[in-house]
Amino acid sequence: MDTREFRKWAHEMADWMADYLETVEERPVRAAVEPGDIAKRLPSTPPEAGEDMGRIFADFRETILPGITHWQHPAFFAYFPANSSPPSVLAEMLTATLGAQCMSWQTSPAATELETRVMEWLSQLIGLPEGFTGCIQDTASTASLCALLSARERATDFASNRSGMAGQGRMTVYCSEETHSSIEKDVGIAGFGRENLRKIAVDDSYAMRPDLLSEAIDRDVAGGFTPVCVVATIGTTGAGGIDPVAAIAKICRKHGIWLHVDAAWAGSALVLPEHRWMIEGIEGADSFLFNPHKWLFTNFDCTAYFVRDPAALVQTFEITPEYLKTAEGDRVVNYRDWGIQLGRRFRALKLWFVLRHYGAFGLRQAIGGHIAMTRRLVERMQADQDWEVVADSGLALFCFRWLPAGIADPVRVDSLNEALMQRVNATGRAYFTHTRLRGRYVIRWSVGQTATEERHVEAAWALVRETAAVLAVEAGVG
Amino acid sequence: MDTREFRKWAHEMADWMADYLETVEERPVRAAVEPGDIAKRLPSTPPEAGEDMGRIFADFRETILPGITHWQHPAFFAYFPANSSPPSVLAEMLTATLGAQCMSWQTSPAATELETRVMEWLSQLIGLPEGFTGCIQDTASTASLCALLSARERATDFASNRSGMAGQGRMTVYCSEETHSSIEKDVGIAGFGRENLRKIAVDDSYAMRPDLLSEAIDRDVAGGFTPVCVVATIGTTGAGGIDPVAAIAKICRKHGIWLHVDAAWAGSALVLPEHRWMIEGIEGADSFLFNPHKWLFTNFDCTAYFVRDPAALVQTFEITPEYLKTAEGDRVVNYRDWGIQLGRRFRALKLWFVLRHYGAFGLRQAIGGHIAMTRRLVERMQADQDWEVVADSGLALFCFRWLPAGIADPVRVDSLNEALMQRVNATGRAYFTHTRLRGRYVIRWSVGQTATEERHVEAAWALVRETAAVLAVEAGVG
Repeated sequence: MDTREFRKWAHEMADWMADYLETVEERPVRAAVEPGDIAKRLPSTPPEAGEDMGRIFADFRETILPGITHWQHPAFFAYFPANSSPPSVLAEMLTATLGAQCMSWQTSPAATELETRVMEWLSQLIGLPEGFTGCIQDTASTASLCALLSARERATDFASNRSGMAGQGRMTVYCSEETHSSIEKDVGIAGFGRENLRKIAVDDSYAMRPDLLSEAIDRDVAGGFTPVCVVATIGTTGAGGIDPVAAIAKICRKHGIWLHVDAAWAGSALVLPEHRWMIEGIEGADSFLFNPHKWLFTNFDCTAYFVRDPAALVQTFEITPEYLKTAEGDRVVNYRDWGIQLGRRFRALKLWFVLRHYGAFGLRQAIGGHIAMTRRLVERMQADQDWEVVADSGLALFCFRWLPAGIADPVRVDSLNEALMQRVNATGRAYFTHTRLRGRYVIRWSVGQTATEERHVEAAWALVRETAAVLAVEAGVG
Repeated sequence: MDTREFRKWAHEMADWMADYLETVEERPVRAAVEPGDIAKRLPSTPPEAGEDMGRIFADFRETILPGITHWQHPAFFAYFPANSSPPSVLAEMLTATLGAQCMSWQTSPAATELETRVMEWLSQLIGLPEGFTGCIQDTASTASLCALLSARERATDFASNRSGMAGQGRMTVYCSEETHSSIEKDVGIAGFGRENLRKIAVDDSYAMRPDLLSEAIDRDVAGGFTPVCVVATIGTTGAGGIDPVAAIAKICRKHGIWLHVDAAWAGSALVLPEHRWMIEGIEGADSFLFNPHKWLFTNFDCTAYFVRDPAALVQTFEITPEYLKTAEGDRVVNYRDWGIQLGRRFRALKLWFVLRHYGAFGLRQAIGGHIAMTRRLVERMQADQDWEVVADSGLALFCFRWLPAGIADPVRVDSLNEALMQRVNATGRAYFTHTRLRGRYVIRWSVGQTATEERHVEAAWALVRETAAVLAVEAGVG
């Protein structure tokens, strides 16, 4: 395809992109397809001759698009947001065109220096204290793995990396029972063994109980284990629980344990000073992450990973074969040594576009708006006896449960809630996901897509209530 | 930014994108900046008020672009290619707009089913035998880590994941001394210890010597180690060496060792049947990877990772908390369980666009073209007594060395070659990187960018010779 034809198609795409964002609201949020529906429309062998772009694009619209769950739909209330924004998408267009590999300073000096700068900006925007240095990672799974590996190496004086864990004693890691599953996965990857992850019980607000953490550490030390890392979460996935960082940091300091703070979702709320109580005590943490690709209008992937001691991070990962040596030597930062992957996209650009387009004021307004509309919804639900707000993060996530009149059996209530959620999702007019809290099935309501306005929240709330009313009649309850 | 304004900017970007690709050749390949040049032009604090997109875009062009090394420049001969193509960039525009999170089938059914299909296509296109199942990973670093972890788990009956490596015996991993540094990094991450990576010597073609591999394994077994994985490379980074897969596979089978084959760069050449001798014996491998984001016209990131036993991969990584359970259960593939990260971009789309746009015929032509022009260049250099082709992959990479007349001291020759490369790179008219082979400084010449034509190769060869002539005079040699 020559550049003349590329130009034509790039303009076609530009129009489609704007059309899509203009009309995404009219599409079913969750793809209305059955397993195999898309696959059976795709040939089992690749074409021998090249195909016309018009045909490829038409197949994208006709075959692929009906099988897409629309994460940018304003009525996407499932999981966590993975929001994006026009300036972020514009930056992605440029990044894709440059196709630069940003592993080393020399392979893209501006990408490296811009990354350093936007991470400084981000640190200021969320009110991190001085002393943290940031870089961009792809996902929280990976950044948390970096934290666990750094903790492992610090605890063993970098001997695990060098000689392996077989020669080391048994090490333990701590998190709460509400911590994201990626931590358990990472603990396995890093060679600690999933059994050596202690899941500390939570209090009524789904936050880790520091007294129980302290007891667990003492028990492990007495049992011959070496505690190496505690993962505290600010905004747990299930219920949005906020672990008490200051109390946990105190325990970590006492025992010389690495403290990693995972604020993947809730970290974006720190742009609002009134929510910064969540990171009280953060100066005692060794690493901290949050995902601008969740709730800060930046396309996936973009995890902001901050550490107190970049040297420990680099020492964990650095490896410089001859073919990666460059003349600049130590005068520059080579971000390839700051994480697991050698290859790196130019991810700083989209973050720069977003932070400049919104400005600090715009970010506070947008995030504050999501929180405010969620607060109003929570109040209304709390005032309605047919509904229970089971957990409330105080931010833009809460978990609720339908309490059909006259049903006492909690298992029956569970299955009615599951039926309710499935039926609402099947309408295509909103999309929710669930979790279980203290054994009970609850529906999570997460607000945070860029286009979500209060009218979308209100319409979804009406839909939930109407659907429940129909279900109640069918089930002969109420 | 509303969709009206977004549409306007998307069209502006479309024109810039086409302009850029049309004129990239006129830019200096390697950014002509010093450390800190870009950083000092970027404010140290983020803006309080949102800024105008026109200003942001102007700053991108004026501040960022001069600091970019142009990987899509036709005279980019450094490292390995990271090529892209117009259809791939078009697909990235759509992917960025959809902003879909493709971790589970339900979160984007079409993305999952398309990924399965394009991996089947890719397997056919490169002539992999039946019995391999593929998925997309971000980078070879990560995919190789997946292989090492799967090997670790298989060797310990999944006890490492469960109980940790402290309770396991000492395990060893094998590669050649020319294997990419990411393997050593991964060996550290996976907890084996970098010391337990045995770097087997290579033969004259820079390929691993299976006899020495066999001896090393025997020695380790006798020494009480458990050999768990051999990494064979097809196309090493330094010199493009091709490890003998069949002979290595035989050794691995005998000892029950996991064989991982890393064809990150050279794998794309397998679209040409005449190069498939490189994977003779691949049916004895447990895992295989190559990077369509290197030499198959697909934007980074896109690593194709194939395994013989997907169940072992899934068992290594699977973890399903309540909030990730979906009603489809086992009827669907959830690619989140096939790798380290939970979050996943819709990467199959760009690969689908590329494979359809080029077709098998077009891919053979494009890759074959790169190889053919490299072959002609190698022949000319071999015919010139002032130059030595030190290593030749037989594909589109070779290593060469200037032999200034009358200089016998190899260290002096090294420094003249380094000076030559630095001076060529400083012209901005071509970009090369180096390595050391058998202790000697050599310049790598890697052909593979999408826009590279024979005239670019010829112009760079003339530039190299002219620069050497000037250097020779200055150094008082020749």
